[in-house]
Amino acid sequence: MSATPEGDLLKDSISRIQQNVDSVFDAFLTSPDDSRSRLVDAMRYAAIGGGKRLRPLLLVSTAEMYGVNRDSALRAACAVESIHIYSLIHDDLPCMDDDDMRHGKPTLHRAFDEATAVLAGDAFHALAFEILADDETGGDPFARSELIATLARASGMHGMAGGQMMDMAAGEEEHDLHSITRLQQLKTGALLAASVEMGAIMGHVPPEGRHHLRAYARDIGLAFQIADDLLDHEGDEAKTGKAVRKDQGQGKATFVSLMGPDKAREQANALVEQAIGHLASHGDDAQILRALARYVVERDR
Amino acid sequence: MSATPEGDLLKDSISRIQQNVDSVFDAFLTSPDDSRSRLVDAMRYAAIGGGKRLRPLLLVSTAEMYGVNRDSALRAACAVESIHIYSLIHDDLPCMDDDDMRHGKPTLHRAFDEATAVLAGDAFHALAFEILADDETGGDPFARSELIATLARASGMHGMAGGQMMDMAAGEEEHDLHSITRLQQLKTGALLAASVEMGAIMGHVPPEGRHHLRAYARDIGLAFQIADDLLDHEGDEAKTGKAVRKDQGQGKATFVSLMGPDKAREQANALVEQAIGHLASHGDDAQILRALARYVVERDR
Repeated sequence: MSATPEGDLLKDSISRIQQNVDSVFDAFLTSPDDSRSRLVDAMRYAAIGGGKRLRPLLLVSTAEMYGVNRDSALRAACAVESIHIYSLIHDDLPCMDDDDMRHGKPTLHRAFDEATAVLAGDAFHALAFEILADDETGGDPFARSELIATLARASGMHGMAGGQMMDMAAGEEEHDLHSITRLQQLKTGALLAASVEMGAIMGHVPPEGRHHLRAYARDIGLAFQIADDLLDHEGDEAKTGKAVRKDQGQGKATFVSLMGPDKAREQANALVEQAIGHLASHGDDAQILRALARYVVERDR
Repeated sequence: MSATPEGDLLKDSISRIQQNVDSVFDAFLTSPDDSRSRLVDAMRYAAIGGGKRLRPLLLVSTAEMYGVNRDSALRAACAVESIHIYSLIHDDLPCMDDDDMRHGKPTLHRAFDEATAVLAGDAFHALAFEILADDETGGDPFARSELIATLARASGMHGMAGGQMMDMAAGEEEHDLHSITRLQQLKTGALLAASVEMGAIMGHVPPEGRHHLRAYARDIGLAFQIADDLLDHEGDEAKTGKAVRKDQGQGKATFVSLMGPDKAREQANALVEQAIGHLASHGDDAQILRALARYVVERDR
C-alpha cells in the first residue's frame, strides 16, 4: 500500500474489517460440549485471524456507500467470507490442489485431518446461508431472498464450483487467454462480484442501478487474478504464506504464461484504471472502493 | 411393503415422487459446453435414477396435507434432496466412510474421481439454496427465508454436519444409547425433521402448529436409523445396494450392538406407533405419512 492519504484510509479499513470479521466468527463459532467440538475448533482455526478479508471489505464498503447499517452488512459479509473459507479448505485438500500452507500456517487437513476438513468446509457452506436467512441480517425478507440467490448462484456450478472444475481440467487441456479469463471469472470473479452486488442489494439499489458496480467488480476480479499469477511467478513464499511457483511446476496456463509478466502487469493496471472509471458517479463515497482497486495489484501477498 | 390398500397407496406415491424428482433434477442439471460438463455429468450420475426419495416424499406429503401446490413443494423437496445427495457423496469419500457402492452402482468418487466428488457435493449444496431462494419455489419471501433458515440449520454444524463429526469420532469413543441417539438425531434426524417442517412452512402453518409434525419426524427418524442398523446387521448387500456389516467390522456402537436385535426391532416398532399417534388430528389427509412411518421399519433396503 502506498503511503498516501488514500493508502492510510485503506490500511485502517482493512485492519478494522479484519477485527470485525474475527469478532463475528468468534461469536458464531462456540464449541458444544460433545465430540462436535473438534469440528468447531477446526472452523475457528480456519476462520479467525487470517485472510485479507477482501470480500467482506468490498461488501461492507459498497453497503456503506448506500447508508446500510454496518452491523447488518458485516453479517452478510461474513456469509460471503464463509463461502470463501469453505472453498479454500476444500481446494487445499490432497485430491484437489494438495496444499500444505495457507495464511502462513498448515492447511486445515494438515492441522486436523481430511475428514474434518471436508466437514468443516461443508459446515461453513451451511453457515453462510444460515446467516443470510436470519432476520438479524436485515429486516426485509425480499432483500434476504435476493442476497441468498445471489450468493448461491455465485458459489455453485454456474459460479465458483464450476470455475474450480475448469481449473482442475486446466492441466489436461490447452487453454488460451479467452478460456483462462472465463475460468477465473467463475472461480474468483463470481464471489467478488457477489460481494459488491450484495452490498448494493442491502442498499436497496435496483438491479438496473448495479451495472457499474458489477463492471467494477469484474475488472478488479480479473486484475486480482493477474496479480495473483504475478505473485506466484515472482513471489516470496514467506510473504504470501502459501506455496509459490506451483502453476509453473504443473505446467498450467496462467495470465503470466500466456502474456508474459510485463504485458500481464500492464493489463492488470489497465483493468484497475477501468474499474475506478466505473465509480465516477460516486464521488468521495467510493474512496475505499477506489483504494481497494489499486491495492489489488499493488499488494505483495 | 405390505399388500394392503395403504401399502399400494404408498407404493404409488413413492414411484410418483421418484419420477418427479428425477424430472426436476433433469431440468436443473443441463451441461454447459465447456470443461464444467464433467461436473454436471457427475451431478446427474448422483442425482438421477437412485435413492428412495424419502425426504422429498415427506416434504411433499406434508405440504399437500395443507393444500400446497405440488410443483412448488417439489422444488423445495429437491432442495432437501440436494443436501441429502451432497452428504452421501462427501460421506462416501475415502477420508470419510470410504464406500465403493451406493444405490447399487459405484460411488461418485469411484465412477469419476475424488476432486470431482468434492466439487459435485459442494455444487449440490449451493443448488439447494439456489432453488429455495428462487421465487418460482413460492411467491412469499417470508416463507422462503424460513425454508432457507430451516434447511441451513438442519444441515450445518448444529445438524447433519455436526452429527457426521460425532459419527467420525464414534469409532474412538465409548458411546452409550443416549449419545448414539443424539448423534443420529443430528446426522439423519435433523434433515428428516426439516423435510416435514418445510412442508408445513409452505402450508403457512405457524411454528406452534408444527409441534406434532416435528414429534412425528423425530420418531420416524430414530426408527429409520434403528432399521438401518438392523439392515446393516442382518442385511443383504444385493438389496441395499451398498456394503453391509460395516459397523460391526469397525467395532462401532449402533442401536443393535447396544440393545441387541430383538429389543432394537421392538423399539423401532414402538417409535412408529408413537409417530402415527402424533398424526391423530389429521384424519385421512395423513394417510401417506402414516404409511411412510410403517414403511420406514418394514423396508428391506
